[in-house]
Amino acid sequence: MSAQTLLDTITFNAQGLVTAIAQDYETHEVLMVAYMSADTLRQTLETGLMTYWSRSRQEVWVKGATSGHTQHVHEVRVDCDGDALLFMVEQKGAACHTGHRSCFFRTFEDGTVRILDF
Amino acid sequence: MSAQTLLDTITFNAQGLVTAIAQDYETHEVLMVAYMSADTLRQTLETGLMTYWSRSRQEVWVKGATSGHTQHVHEVRVDCDGDALLFMVEQKGAACHTGHRSCFFRTFEDGTVRILDF
Repeated sequence: MSAQTLLDTITFNAQGLVTAIAQDYETHEVLMVAYMSADTLRQTLETGLMTYWSRSRQEVWVKGATSGHTQHVHEVRVDCDGDALLFMVEQKGAACHTGHRSCFFRTFEDGTVRILDF
Repeated sequence: MSAQTLLDTITFNAQGLVTAIAQDYETHEVLMVAYMSADTLRQTLETGLMTYWSRSRQEVWVKGATSGHTQHVHEVRVDCDGDALLFMVEQKGAACHTGHRSCFFRTFEDGTVRILDF
């Protein structure tokens, strides 16, 4: 994959970041949303491992580097206005630092929060 | 659904917005990503129709108000750090203004862009 071809389609925000959604390539479950810089996007494409830019720590964040819960890229898509990327990934273990498979483990029903069983 | 219960879990960004992903409730296809303010989130919950805040037009954006391509909310989930919402929706017609069912209709393969057939 040519990183430049992909980079040319992207409109980075004022912080030089683009929204990156990770979706399980088999179940189509949305796992998490984070951000990538041009450099971490290039690194993602080169290594095949989801590599974000941590806004809180202001550093390169290779997902799973410490936990082992890596995300291997199967496919990347870009949206119509180029400000969001959708990655189809193979998730090792849990995507969420809480231990849940997806970061979206809280649902709202009848005015209350319910924790989803995954 | 109690809007306040949901609002209490959300960390809005410096612009007062939260990322909102719309996913087809049946196929689990990711349709689009946009933003909601607290007010448009309340309106979404009250009406059951996805209502975003348009950053480009700086106005309330009831999805499908002109095109008829509305998104009816079936479920809403929030992520671990409360800065992204995942809506399971029933999409009428195309989510994308280009006429594609999903805004993520471009995929990258072998260094080139391929338009997905939907």
